[in-house]
Order: sequence, then C-alpha cells, then structure tokens
Amino acid sequence: MIVVLKQNPDPVKLEKLSSQLRDMGLTLHFSQGVHTSLIGLVGDTSKVDMEMLGANELVETVKRVSEPYKAANRKFHPQDTVVNVNGCKIGEGFFSVIAGPCSVETEEQIIEVAQAVKKSGAKFLRGGAFKPRTSPYAFQGLHDEGIRLLLKAKAVTHMPIVTELMSLGHLDLFSDVDIIQVGARNMQNFEMLKELGHSNKPILLKRGLANTIEELLMSAEYIMAGGNSNVILCERGVRTFETATRNTMDISAVPLLKQLSHLPVVVDPSHATGIPWMVKPLSKAALAAGADGVMIEVHNNPSKALCDGAQSLTPLQFAQVMAALRPMAEFEGKIL
Amino acid sequence: MIVVLKQNPDPVKLEKLSSQLRDMGLTLHFSQGVHTSLIGLVGDTSKVDMEMLGANELVETVKRVSEPYKAANRKFHPQDTVVNVNGCKIGEGFFSVIAGPCSVETEEQIIEVAQAVKKSGAKFLRGGAFKPRTSPYAFQGLHDEGIRLLLKAKAVTHMPIVTELMSLGHLDLFSDVDIIQVGARNMQNFEMLKELGHSNKPILLKRGLANTIEELLMSAEYIMAGGNSNVILCERGVRTFETATRNTMDISAVPLLKQLSHLPVVVDPSHATGIPWMVKPLSKAALAAGADGVMIEVHNNPSKALCDGAQSLTPLQFAQVMAALRPMAEFEGKIL
Amino acid sequence: MIVVLKQNPDPVKLEKLSSQLRDMGLTLHFSQGVHTSLIGLVGDTSKVDMEMLGANELVETVKRVSEPYKAANRKFHPQDTVVNVNGCKIGEGFFSVIAGPCSVETEEQIIEVAQAVKKSGAKFLRGGAFKPRTSPYAFQGLHDEGIRLLLKAKAVTHMPIVTELMSLGHLDLFSDVDIIQVGARNMQNFEMLKELGHSNKPILLKRGLANTIEELLMSAEYIMAGGNSNVILCERGVRTFETATRNTMDISAVPLLKQLSHLPVVVDPSHATGIPWMVKPLSKAALAAGADGVMIEVHNNPSKALCDGAQSLTPLQFAQVMAALRPMAEFEGKIL
Amino acid sequence: MIVVLKQNPDPVKLEKLSSQLRDMGLTLHFSQGVHTSLIGLVGDTSKVDMEMLGANELVETVKRVSEPYKAANRKFHPQDTVVNVNGCKIGEGFFSVIAGPCSVETEEQIIEVAQAVKKSGAKFLRGGAFKPRTSPYAFQGLHDEGIRLLLKAKAVTHMPIVTELMSLGHLDLFSDVDIIQVGARNMQNFEMLKELGHSNKPILLKRGLANTIEELLMSAEYIMAGGNSNVILCERGVRTFETATRNTMDISAVPLLKQLSHLPVVVDPSHATGIPWMVKPLSKAALAAGADGVMIEVHNNPSKALCDGAQSLTPLQFAQVMAALRPMAEFEGKIL
Repeated sequence: MIVVLKQNPDPVKLEKLSSQLRDMGLTLHFSQGVHTSLIGLVGDTSKVDMEMLGANELVETVKRVSEPYKAANRKFHPQDTVVNVNGCKIGEGFFSVIAGPCSVETEEQIIEVAQAVKKSGAKFLRGGAFKPRTSPYAFQGLHDEGIRLLLKAKAVTHMPIVTELMSLGHLDLFSDVDIIQVGARNMQNFEMLKELGHSNKPILLKRGLANTIEELLMSAEYIMAGGNSNVILCERGVRTFETATRNTMDISAVPLLKQLSHLPVVVDPSHATGIPWMVKPLSKAALAAGADGVMIEVHNNPSKALCDGAQSLTPLQFAQVMAALRPMAEFEGKIL
Repeated sequence: MIVVLKQNPDPVKLEKLSSQLRDMGLTLHFSQGVHTSLIGLVGDTSKVDMEMLGANELVETVKRVSEPYKAANRKFHPQDTVVNVNGCKIGEGFFSVIAGPCSVETEEQIIEVAQAVKKSGAKFLRGGAFKPRTSPYAFQGLHDEGIRLLLKAKAVTHMPIVTELMSLGHLDLFSDVDIIQVGARNMQNFEMLKELGHSNKPILLKRGLANTIEELLMSAEYIMAGGNSNVILCERGVRTFETATRNTMDISAVPLLKQLSHLPVVVDPSHATGIPWMVKPLSKAALAAGADGVMIEVHNNPSKALCDGAQSLTPLQFAQVMAALRPMAEFEGKIL
Repeated sequence: MIVVLKQNPDPVKLEKLSSQLRDMGLTLHFSQGVHTSLIGLVGDTSKVDMEMLGANELVETVKRVSEPYKAANRKFHPQDTVVNVNGCKIGEGFFSVIAGPCSVETEEQIIEVAQAVKKSGAKFLRGGAFKPRTSPYAFQGLHDEGIRLLLKAKAVTHMPIVTELMSLGHLDLFSDVDIIQVGARNMQNFEMLKELGHSNKPILLKRGLANTIEELLMSAEYIMAGGNSNVILCERGVRTFETATRNTMDISAVPLLKQLSHLPVVVDPSHATGIPWMVKPLSKAALAAGADGVMIEVHNNPSKALCDGAQSLTPLQFAQVMAALRPMAEFEGKIL
Repeated sequence: MIVVLKQNPDPVKLEKLSSQLRDMGLTLHFSQGVHTSLIGLVGDTSKVDMEMLGANELVETVKRVSEPYKAANRKFHPQDTVVNVNGCKIGEGFFSVIAGPCSVETEEQIIEVAQAVKKSGAKFLRGGAFKPRTSPYAFQGLHDEGIRLLLKAKAVTHMPIVTELMSLGHLDLFSDVDIIQVGARNMQNFEMLKELGHSNKPILLKRGLANTIEELLMSAEYIMAGGNSNVILCERGVRTFETATRNTMDISAVPLLKQLSHLPVVVDPSHATGIPWMVKPLSKAALAAGADGVMIEVHNNPSKALCDGAQSLTPLQFAQVMAALRPMAEFEGKIL
C-alpha cells in the first residue's frame, strides 16, 4: 500500500502517523520526490482501512497494490473450485447450461419447459418464484407456490433447481432448493451475503448493474468469509450509455474472473441483451472466452410469459442453441 | 403506448393481438407507414406489461409515452409533499440540513457531533448503526448499540434522527428512529421497499449507483403503493467513467425530480464526491438548483473515523459550510 | 415517427403544425389518450428534423420508429459488403487478421514484425505513423517517414497496409495506403468522414469511446453518403465505470452490427482490454460471435515499444493466438 | 511514480531495468512486501512513458502520483488565468454569459438574437457556422457565409464572437473570430489542438462526451504546450446511462477544475440537458459552484431553428434567466 503525502508535511505529525502505522506491524519505506513524497507500507495491509488513512490531514491519496480479497483470490487458492450438485458440476471441464423460464407460472408450464430443456441438454433448471420488478404493479412471482412447482419439476426431471432469493425472510422456503441465486440488485445486499455465508448451499452470485469485477469478488468474499466457498460468479451485463441492448455484456469479465479467482464463472446472455436471437452468438462467445456455463431463459410461450417474455427463447430455439454449442464445446475440450 | 410492428404482420395473428388489447379496455389506432406500421394504444395502459407485449412475434418494439409511476407523479398530485417530523420539515420552503458521522462510534462522539451540528444549524442528525461496506473485513457498524447511542444523542439535542436500514430483520430496532434511510445499494431491494410501504415513518430513499431518475421514482412508488407517502428522494451521485470524484453528482436530477414528482429532494455531496472541500460549493449548487436540503457527513475527528473519514468535515468546516449556506438560503427565499 | 403532444394543445397552433407536416408529404394519424395525445407521421420521415419538431411549443417528445441510416442499413441492402484489397478480403466467409505494431519505429522493426505476422497467417499489416496520444509530451509517431517504412514493409511482404489518418492535412501522404483507419477519437470528426466519402479507399472506422452502435452506423453513413461504400466497422471497447480493463469490449455489438448493417465487422481486443494475455480468449469470442476479423497489436520488443507496448503481443505470442484461431475458424466454416 | 513488480522478479532483469531507470536521471526506492515488491521513482518522471514501463515483463502495474499536466496545473501557476477580449473578460471575478443560436441562419436572425442577448446582459455572442451533426442528412451550417453573418452581428453589437472550428482546413476563415470553440467531439483531435497552440486567439475547449477531467486538462496542455495559454475550459455534460437528460452535467467538474488548474471554467447547461427550462436552475448551480460563466443557446424562433431548437431559449426566456442570475452574481461577489 502506498501513501502519497501532501506537500511539506509537518514533521511532528508525520512522526505520529508513522508510529501509528508501525504499531499495526507494518514496515515503512519513505521516498522523497521533487514534488511529492510517499510512504510504502509493507506487511499485512488487509487490516489497514484505506479511508481512515486517506482522512489523515497529511495524506493526499492512498493506493492499494494488492487485491483486497483473500478467499476468492486465485493467488492463494490456485486450484479451480468445482460446484457439484448430486454429480451435476459447474467447473472442472464442464460447460453447464442452466435453463428455464424467467418466472414459474403454472405446474404445466414449468414441467413442460423443464422436460424440454433437459431433453436438449440443460443440466440445471432455473425459474423465478420471487421476481424483482422495477414496477410495483408488475407480476411479482408465485412465491412459495412457485418454489413448490419448481420442486415438482425437479421430482419429475431430476434436474437440480436454481432460484432467486429476494429477502432473508424467505430463506426457510429455500431448504430444498439446490442453488440459491443472488440477483444483480442484491449483489451488495451485504446482510444477505453474510447470512448465505452460513448456508451449505451453492450460491449463484450475479454481478450488479454497475459493479466492478473487484466488487463482485468482494461480494463473493462476503459469502466465503462466512464459511461457504461454493460460489458461482455470473456475468449478466452491465449498465452503460448503449441502449441498443438492455445491458452491455462484459465478455472480458470471463477470462479476467477466471484468472483472478478460482471460482466458476457463468454468463447470462438473456439478461445481458434482452434479445432472444442474440443468445446463440453470445453463448458461443462465452464458451470461446472460457466460461464454465451459461444461463438461458426459455419459455414454452414467450408471448404469454408473465415477465421478461421478450427475451425468452422457445424450447425449439433453445434446442437450436444447444445444437450449436454441443460440437463447439467438444471442440473446446469441454463436456456440455 | 405505441406498438411498433414488424414488417408485413400476419393479418390473422394481428387480429388476435388486437382483440386481446381491446379486451384490456384499450382503444387502438393503426398507422401504416412505408417501412413500418404501428398501433397507438389509448386508455389505462398501466395494466399493460410492456415486456409481454414486446415478446409477441408481431411486435418489434413497444414505446411508452406516459410515466409508469402514479402516486409519485406530480401530474396527479400537483401540491408539494412536505415531510414533517415533530415540526422539523423537509420541503415547504425549508432548506433542511441533515448532518452527522458516517457511523456511530461512541456515546461521546455522537453527542459531541450532534451538539456541534445543531449549533451550526443542522435540523436532523444522521449516523450509521448498520454500515454497508464493500469489504467483509471492514468495520460494519455498532448495530443495536449504534441505534441506542443515536437515541441518546436525540434525547440530549432533540434532533430527529436518520439512520440506514440494511435488512428487514433489523426493523424492530428502528421503532424510535425518526427517518429510515434506504441506502443506494438497496434502492431496488423491492421486498424492503414493500415492507416500508406499510410503515408510518418517513423514508429517505437514496438513488442507486446506476439507477435512472425513473427507476428512483418507481422505487418511491413501491413505498407509496403500500400506503406510506412520506418519501424523501436523495441524489447522491451516480457511477460513471470519471474517477476524479467517487461518483458523479447529477445536479440535473434536482430540478427534474422536482418537476416530475411532488416529493422533497435532498442531495448528499459527501458521498457524491468523497472529497470534503467540495461539500461547500456543491451544497450551494444544490440549493441554487432547487433542492430541499442536503445531507453532510461530519465527524469530530475524521482521521480516526471508523468509516468514510476521508470525506467527512470537521465541526468547524461544517460551521463554515453553514455560514455560506445561510445567507444564500435567505437570498433564495428559503428557511435554513 | 411519433409526436407526443403536451396536454391540451391549442387547436389553432395544432392545425398550423399539422399543415406544416402535411406540406412535407407526410400523412398524419391522430390518437387521443386519457393523459396524452399523439400524432403518427407516415411517409419519408428522413427529411424530418426531430430536434426542430421537438422544439415546437406543443410537442413533449418525438420518437423515431425506423433507423436513421439508409446506405448502411441491411434492410435496404440485404447482401453482405465484402472489402477486397488485391484479393485480400474482409467479409465473405473470411476471418481476416490485421496485425502489427502500435506505431512504426524503424525499418528493421516494421519489416521484422510484418514478416513474423505474415508467417503466422495475418492478412493485413497495421502500424501507426500518426499516433493520437493523450499527452502532448508522448511520442507522436514518425509521420511521413512512418508511412514510407510501412510501404517498404508492404513491398517486402506484399501485405496490404492499414494506418490511421489523424488530419485531412495529411491525406496526400496516404495515396499508397491500402486501408485508411479512422480512430475512435475521430469517429465523429464529420469533416474527415465527408472527405473520406470521396476517396476510393476502404475505410476502417473505429467506434468512439462513448458512441452508440447507431452513431457508429451514422458515421459510416457519412462516408457512404459521399459515394464510398467500402467501410469496415471496428468494435474496440467502450468506456464504462469498469477500470480492470482499459475499455469494456462490447461483444454484443458484433452480432447486432451484422444484423443491422451489411458492412463487415472486425474487433480490436488489444485496445479493448490493454492486456496482452486477453487477446487470445477475446479473439476467439469475436470469431464465435460472428466477426469478420480481428485487429491485434504485435511488437517484436514490447518493452521497448514507443507506445502501447504494454498491450502488444510478441510475434511468438501472436503465433500462439493464430494457432488457436485457425482450427476454430475452420470449425466455424471460415477461412483464416 | 510507483512501479509494482510481479512476484519473484528475476534479479538480473531487475538490475537491467533499474539501471535503465537510473539512466533517465531517476532515483529508485525499493520496497519489499510480503506478496508484492515495488520501486518508487523519484525525479522528473514526466519523461517516463508509463505504457513502455508497464510493458516490461517484470512489471505488474505502474501508478502515477503526480499530475501529467504542467502548463495547465495550478500547482505551478497559482494565479488565475483571465481571458480578455477587448476588455470583455472571462475569469477575474466576472461571471460571463455567452449566448446565441446553435447555428447562424440568416442575417436578420443573428442580429436580432445578438441585440436581444446583449440587452439582457450577455457579453459574448455564440453561433455555429460549421455544425457537427450525427446525421449526414441534417443541416450542417452556413459555413463561410455563417462566419460573415456573425461578423456583421459583431459590427452591429460590438460583442466578441465565439464559433466552432470543425476542421483545420477552415482555419483561414476564423481570422476575425474572437474565440475559437473546439467542440466536444474534437476535444481529442490532437492535430487540431497542436495547430491552435500556435494561434494567438483564445480557445474555448469543450469537454468530450466521455472524457475525464484529467483528459480535458491534457487537451488544454496540448494547446498550451504550443504557446497559447488563453484556454477556457467548458463543462457541457458527459454521457452516462441516464436518458432523462441529453447528457449528465458534471457540476463537480467546476470546483475540481478550478482547483487543479488556473484556467477559467464555463458551463453549457443547454447542451448538458437539452431541456430549455433547466437552463435557469443549472446556470444558478454553475454560478454557485464557482464557474466563471455560462454558455446558453438562444433563438428568436426555437421551433423554426435549423438545429438544436428544442434546447434553445427564446430571448424572453433568456432575459428571465439573466434576471435570476444578476442578483445572485452580485450576492456571490461577481460581476455579470
């Protein structure tokens, strides 16, 4: 960590600051430049609060030189983490497809979609029981009934299920859910992350609309610091000035997250673009860039879907995407 | 609402879509262009789900022409909403200053800061008991003890208190809090917004890091739809490519929110910039642009603050800001 | 085009506006809603200036329903445009690799790099003679000497050359250049675009740092409106809040541009990320998403490069990227 | 400047890098951390190319600790720069208003507007002769005839004129123009900036759509490095995800630019928002935040304006803005 000092620091105050830093077990290296002087801090700087230090009257800025995350950091855990739900894996050479409707609507719908996507090769079933909607007047999901229907579809198809938790108050309902999704809008709902750190279930953590890659890893760190290291990172598009797509899919996040962290990474092209025909080229791009899987919205009747229908594929369109991904996964040495 | 159709729509399917729309009580106006044809929907379109409609195979896009919020909309409620806590008002010609430390740390600290900011003219005391921090290893607040200390400071100074709710699980602790703050990271925590709609306390709703003005108003609508119309909107900077300031303060949001909505609007220059000396010019700018108040971080010892110290003012610096704001408020015909 | 009117428009002024619009050859369709009324404009709306119309005192907003570009629009030119330089093609089933140093430095350097990238399979040689640099104190390129050296490298290797034009004043120097690059910072240098519309050379048009896909196509339209339809579009990353990569590569732009336009699309992963090891996964992603080629920075001695060395590949690293792309191109049915 | 090294650097290569740096006249300070080691570079680091250094195989990143601009830097020129055109000043306690139409259209129009804005207190007349337009089919300005008409308006009103240069090829036409405007899209047209550095005219430099404050200052540095220190900086809104306003006006840029640089700073609320009624509150905010002036679009008949009419004020509306600014400027101790 580098502390850049303001011009002409008061020597007495500087000595006081220095001894405070030394008391934290740090070694100090001073450099005096023409216009600027600075202190290099050496030792375990994870205990140093950059903001506190930055507030010191002598300090102009503080710059970090090492990553602030430990448990999620590949430097300290070189081996890939593999999430394994009853043998269905994310990571370890698998390219895992999670598919299903934006929201669970009826028993018929979820079972029909589940059977269709399983037939085409999806390994996990997704479906929303609790739906985050911008408008209070929009359909908000079937809630506990939605979870019940997902579990029915699981019983019929034996696919592990992924569904979003919107409030810790609902956590009891998730006891039979296989993977708990933390949505983009809750990526920095720190109380939720802490609580999920005490869970033994895999967590699918979606990147927030305007969160950096480092912040995504810090949110994973929240969960992992609580003892739960089964975290799947999900790139789902970030918010930019571009309006032609719903969000801007940050494909660079895939190789970067794989290098910085040992956690598996999946991509959600449905939410990233909001445009169904773009799911195929972008799923291929995700595979080519090294992702461990994709999450795709599929609905048996998109124009009747109670939410996000406009971005859902039909089961037939989904089968076509899978037909394109299968040989490509093989070519990349991955198991679809 | 305008429905833009794809080229050469199938007449049978178009008739089916049309009759579905008429069944929702809407009147349809067709326009046939050279390259595009479209339908104008007239009537109460708040029931129309744009996404569902957009998913119809005949539809290219759907464009809204009226605002999707009702309760927060000035068109339907021309009169300004005034939030009144035991006579301390936000709105109605007041320029209300909310001040206090980022986080409550000790009894001495919060009482000392409260007394200092009151003396300088602040009307509300802020202080965090639950702190959202990017890192799980950073100080997270004193929790219930923090609330207890805030209430002590309130007892001593008779200032209404504002503090952030991070989880519905803590709501019981907030029974004596005067204004509940919803932080930027929870602006779209819809379950929290819904629950706060059933509260009778004023809610200070901060704009999310990458949320539009319309989304901010939709989040206010969530609270108001539940019956609680005491909502204060807060601009606190949005995330952009610029790194010289922590966020980019969107000053245009102030006059725009005042025009679109009847709710009071305050600005938080401390979080918007992260730079203490900028609080003065930006508070003046907020006042000049028509804001109903500002929220300012003040700490009796910024360099020892357990969080966000770097952006806090000392009580003396705060007094100087107030000294600059007082005559200007008078000049603008407002009561500080 | 849809004109949304303000509430209760004055009937006399509305009649005046209507007759003005009819005089432009447009047919008008009126819709009267509960809160809003609007006019649908049918006919050749390309002549309508949205801003002028929006300035009318009766008008709230104007919404466009068809694309504002004609020459670049696939709707009117369904067939792919292929750029052909002496048999070296971009488009038509080719995946064309453009490679070379950020800037031309010495005869030895450019010839060595040219020979190396040709051997690995690059079809076009890039190299900067005029360099846009943020700082006036940074190396600005060899100028005419740089062009001379590029032409020498072309004579030796028979590779067509691509180099950036920074000012119309230099255009005479470009008479033997094969493809003229318009850099990101000049994407909306409209005087330059107009002049290049009268050139008979292919133009590689890079997307601006914060320009939308529609604006990129409008800039292509500037060139095409002048008579030059040999335009290659280049996605090179856009500016967002993310700082882990130099820019955020917008992979969605590839399939979207291919659908909206008939022009060929290439991707520049070197500038998009600024990180050499990311060139391989992102070039693969570009190929998977349907791009017609990539542009890659290669330097024989990156740590001595006079600009952008940090993002350049060595010839060996480039050979490894090409080795990864070749079988994948074949798999995708493209010719590398 | 701080060089962060990769883990376990090769000692021989490190010695080589060190001696290269020492050869540049720099003193090196080494710090060895637990996970990271780094070198502090002391001396005149303006000669060090960060990118070249970052490309060294031993180097992880390079961090700058001092600003890369010299001539524009207040640290080296504490005194405010005042731009003075025949006694009409920008800076030095003046709050200068530049007003006029987006584009010059007819002699009558420009003279009528000039007289009107002068009467209301504007000091400078703006008007576009060359207009940057997104579409090649939109009105592009009257060119030399536009300049001729501006000079007529100047002759009649004795107001100095400000107009935009879009291409160096037009520079000869600007010999009688008082202030040359560099538009947002040309902020990084480095060849233009260099040439204007040799001019003796004041330059109004507008911030680019997605350019940082540091980049704006570096573009000013380009002009100043050529010998022309009469640069006026202009904040005109940056591009963000928000669509309610045309751009997002970065009010923080005003105090920040005033602190970092000695150059005068003006704000353009017309382009920042695109909404005429917002010009008043935002001009007041600019004044309150410390700006040296504002630039406002005024048209005698906005709904007939050939460009940007929708954002123009009528002369009457402009008079109302000036009436609001005059007492406020006095209150702030400035001369309008």
